[in-house]
Amino acid sequence: MPHWTALVAGKKQRQLKSIPQHWLVTPPPVSTLDVTSFPETCGLLNAREIEITNTSVDVLLERLASAEWTAVEVTTAFSKRAIVGHQLVNCLTEIFVDRALARAAELDDYLKKTGKVVGPLHGLPISLKDQLSIKGLETTIGYVSWIGQYADKNAVLVDVLIECGAVPFVRTNVPQTVMWPETFNNIFGRTTNPYNRSLTPGGSSGGESALVSIRGSPLGVGSDIGGSIRVPAAFCGLYSLRPSYGRVPYCGARNSLEGQDSILSVFGPITTSVGGVKVFMKAVIDTKPWLRDPLVVRKKWDGDEYNLSDHGSGKDLCFAIMWDDGLVVPHPPIRRSLEITKAALQKAGHKVVDWKPIKHRLLLQIATDIFTAASVEDVMITTSVTGEPIIATMELDDAGFRPQNSGITAYQLWQVQKLRQNIRKEYLDHWEATASETGTGRPVDAIICPVAASAAPPMGKIGHYTNYTTVWNALDYPATTFPVTTVNPTLDGKEPPHDFYDDFDKDIYEMYDPEKFRNAPVCLQLVGRTLEEEAVIKMTEIVDAALAACQINSRYSCRCRKQSYKSTTWPWQYKEFEIHNFTS
Amino acid sequence: MPHWTALVAGKKQRQLKSIPQHWLVTPPPVSTLDVTSFPETCGLLNAREIEITNTSVDVLLERLASAEWTAVEVTTAFSKRAIVGHQLVNCLTEIFVDRALARAAELDDYLKKTGKVVGPLHGLPISLKDQLSIKGLETTIGYVSWIGQYADKNAVLVDVLIECGAVPFVRTNVPQTVMWPETFNNIFGRTTNPYNRSLTPGGSSGGESALVSIRGSPLGVGSDIGGSIRVPAAFCGLYSLRPSYGRVPYCGARNSLEGQDSILSVFGPITTSVGGVKVFMKAVIDTKPWLRDPLVVRKKWDGDEYNLSDHGSGKDLCFAIMWDDGLVVPHPPIRRSLEITKAALQKAGHKVVDWKPIKHRLLLQIATDIFTAASVEDVMITTSVTGEPIIATMELDDAGFRPQNSGITAYQLWQVQKLRQNIRKEYLDHWEATASETGTGRPVDAIICPVAASAAPPMGKIGHYTNYTTVWNALDYPATTFPVTTVNPTLDGKEPPHDFYDDFDKDIYEMYDPEKFRNAPVCLQLVGRTLEEEAVIKMTEIVDAALAACQINSRYSCRCRKQSYKSTTWPWQYKEFEIHNFTS
Repeated sequence: MPHWTALVAGKKQRQLKSIPQHWLVTPPPVSTLDVTSFPETCGLLNAREIEITNTSVDVLLERLASAEWTAVEVTTAFSKRAIVGHQLVNCLTEIFVDRALARAAELDDYLKKTGKVVGPLHGLPISLKDQLSIKGLETTIGYVSWIGQYADKNAVLVDVLIECGAVPFVRTNVPQTVMWPETFNNIFGRTTNPYNRSLTPGGSSGGESALVSIRGSPLGVGSDIGGSIRVPAAFCGLYSLRPSYGRVPYCGARNSLEGQDSILSVFGPITTSVGGVKVFMKAVIDTKPWLRDPLVVRKKWDGDEYNLSDHGSGKDLCFAIMWDDGLVVPHPPIRRSLEITKAALQKAGHKVVDWKPIKHRLLLQIATDIFTAASVEDVMITTSVTGEPIIATMELDDAGFRPQNSGITAYQLWQVQKLRQNIRKEYLDHWEATASETGTGRPVDAIICPVAASAAPPMGKIGHYTNYTTVWNALDYPATTFPVTTVNPTLDGKEPPHDFYDDFDKDIYEMYDPEKFRNAPVCLQLVGRTLEEEAVIKMTEIVDAALAACQINSRYSCRCRKQSYKSTTWPWQYKEFEIHNFTS
Repeated sequence: MPHWTALVAGKKQRQLKSIPQHWLVTPPPVSTLDVTSFPETCGLLNAREIEITNTSVDVLLERLASAEWTAVEVTTAFSKRAIVGHQLVNCLTEIFVDRALARAAELDDYLKKTGKVVGPLHGLPISLKDQLSIKGLETTIGYVSWIGQYADKNAVLVDVLIECGAVPFVRTNVPQTVMWPETFNNIFGRTTNPYNRSLTPGGSSGGESALVSIRGSPLGVGSDIGGSIRVPAAFCGLYSLRPSYGRVPYCGARNSLEGQDSILSVFGPITTSVGGVKVFMKAVIDTKPWLRDPLVVRKKWDGDEYNLSDHGSGKDLCFAIMWDDGLVVPHPPIRRSLEITKAALQKAGHKVVDWKPIKHRLLLQIATDIFTAASVEDVMITTSVTGEPIIATMELDDAGFRPQNSGITAYQLWQVQKLRQNIRKEYLDHWEATASETGTGRPVDAIICPVAASAAPPMGKIGHYTNYTTVWNALDYPATTFPVTTVNPTLDGKEPPHDFYDDFDKDIYEMYDPEKFRNAPVCLQLVGRTLEEEAVIKMTEIVDAALAACQINSRYSCRCRKQSYKSTTWPWQYKEFEIHNFTS
């Protein structure tokens, strides 16, 4: 067995060889923090390629289906931009553009010969988190010890996406173990945030969020066990969905903590429009993935639920805003994003009440206890093959560590899991009981809350404290993210110290410096009921349209939202919005 | 703390006091093994009460809804027969006839005043396994240590059933821990089989199966984690369903091994017709139980799936028979029941192929490893409160034991659970691959197989070896039971020894003596795909009708089926059978 650093060197060399050499550019100096405009100005992409890559999923699919754009040119455009983006923020792991272009050519041929698309994602380039095995490629999830393990078959979701017509073309970076809300590992190094390279893009799907936000991919697949889709999506100003357990196939993907059957990791989309979220989910579910993955719930895409049959047909919704979870007070821009959203929803005729969180600290502790029940043993056994360092922090000067073997017994684990079931029941009853406060005759339709207490922080500063996301994993509530605004030091000045909940709350408070976060995107979460993905997507469309309607003449600056307007997404959404008569 | 035997004496006295004293009878001597006819001949029930108690769920509900029979008279009739049955086979734990009659009177009033039923189960007496908490009553699941713990609220399923109009009136016996396929505990003692009191009624829902088979309840709710609904239903000649995880609410029920999140115990119906199974499932699911139990899957009752939309509309089904699981060779009457069913299905125009089991021994080992990961610790902690003996076997001379504390680590548990997920995938692919053999263009529609290698055996002889049922729990496949025949020593002579798989297979072979099993009911299982309850029920109706059609002019004796014909169930089924044009 070679030294682990030799394995890394070999792997990095293979990665470098997989990059089309004529797409190498001279990136701006490290001191240039905001690199979002670089791909359009570097000269590698022509005007049409820039147009293609600035287009959202819905419109891309329309133009691909009508053969206005070929799959080959769309794949080429995104591949070029992805490679440029990678040189800026180090977001890719596996790069297989040749394979993707060959598939794209097949799709173009098929469409030309038959006049039909192969499926609902015909010709759409899709990037995949470095867990989704592809035949013939390595999947390391940041473990040096897994270098050289070439998959002999695709993960189920990869097969499903390919059959739907999608074109996987790159895989994206993760933290070692995929159990961090940032993105750094011993093989591929650190991914940074295109809006500000001194900030994290979040994690564990941080390669995805960095790539999609720089428009190097129209849609990426991330995974989420405690916030790993939503945190990076939010830190990069993107739409995303953390579905309930068993809605999207996971089978055949690589993961850590395998066999942990309680709080399950799930795959979901990260993209530039809520329309993209819907297209992905409907396409995947329509393939009946329960016939390929035994953990997928036999539940068809439900058009009635999407039309809010369980929510008064969407005419008179009541949203609940959680301003503060009782663990960490959100930073001023997060607070402002909640206020913007509340005003937009009220203007659109919806009710808004406050959400009272219960037992979030306990839920977070339960999730932590379940994850760590045997995680140290799991990580040690994996890394001991090569002796690679186990990453201790996400700080810039992380030096690795060797933890002591520890863990709990199966009986202790059962007690934690039992407690969790009790709290899930309590939370369900709590939600149902809100029916008495909404005035709609129904309980609160959805919760709107922060994704994190801050926008994208500097490296290593978020720690493991994903309190605004992990509770929903523990409860198995589906949740989207949607962009609202960006940090504006003028509007988002530092507040005087509050009465801190604890030291962590204090640390997060002290971390805030408006200038450090300038222009960082601010997203929120919309949280629904278990297995209610259809309604959660529709309600996110409604919130998104309400925000768009308000912001047209608004004083609020929102670069990440504006970027989204460049595509033809939002007028289409707005049109649908009118058709469905959800305006007040 | 009084000595555990004193607690038992007190509890038994309270139980005796809960029996209406004028319903005490003089039971036949212990030497009378078959007591099924006693309730109709003992003189306590009048002719109308006998008619009522011999009627199946569908017809009872029609007559209750039309006020032809009142809820009070139906509840009275079943209560009397239940009390008589209890004196014969010791099947009850909690008896609350007064409470039930009060509720029945309310229902009668409501119907009289409004002309409407309160719900789809209006006036139907339902018996409940001794896990389903009812406010104000104890729920011990056979633990002396839980005597005196009075529930402060109902289990969710109890609330759901009451709201549907059902009338809970008794709870039924279980083995200590509910983790045995027989029924014996230190509080209530042993339940026996009404067909032959030297045989077990099975377990752990053995109180239910004994009670329902003696017609002391039209429908009982059992639970199943390894066969605990199906084994007792089969040993007593009954229809039943083990639903998939999360279709029927479990929340608020008492259980052992709580917090074990991997192979979940589920509740399901035990009754005298497949129509009863359907009525129960549809009624429960139509209440949207996911709004009360966080583990219930948000999946409505699916009429299309019931009409076999995923199975060619049921016109050309292909069933696969598993003759032998490779662990224990079934006894001759089980083999004969499979042959009867095969012939009936072929006569009805369906295809029948052989099912090739894969990895059943491994699946059984995985399930055992998961259950025992912390079960000893769980049981010891529970029983140590009173020092009650831990039951060591289900033999007549069981003397209890104190096991050594043991168990595995969370990491070891994760490894077993990971292996299980891999085997679930393998089995799913195996099933899908049968599409190449059926000639229907679909994979096998359902598997038909034994429920156990034998009919109801003498006490203590089945051990823990529920190999024909537990594999489906481990795979989470829904499965019904349906009666086919009864043991007939003339037709079911002992076979010469085969090449034994192992000592257990040999023991089961040696246990068979046609005379000992005479007249014991023989049921089979029908097994479908995860969360496909609707289709599994419909296919069971089809199999049941095919059997009924064949047996009208058949040489096969089937007392348990004949008993079912006494009700008006089967002609109704037969009618539906014709309407849906499933005959060849």
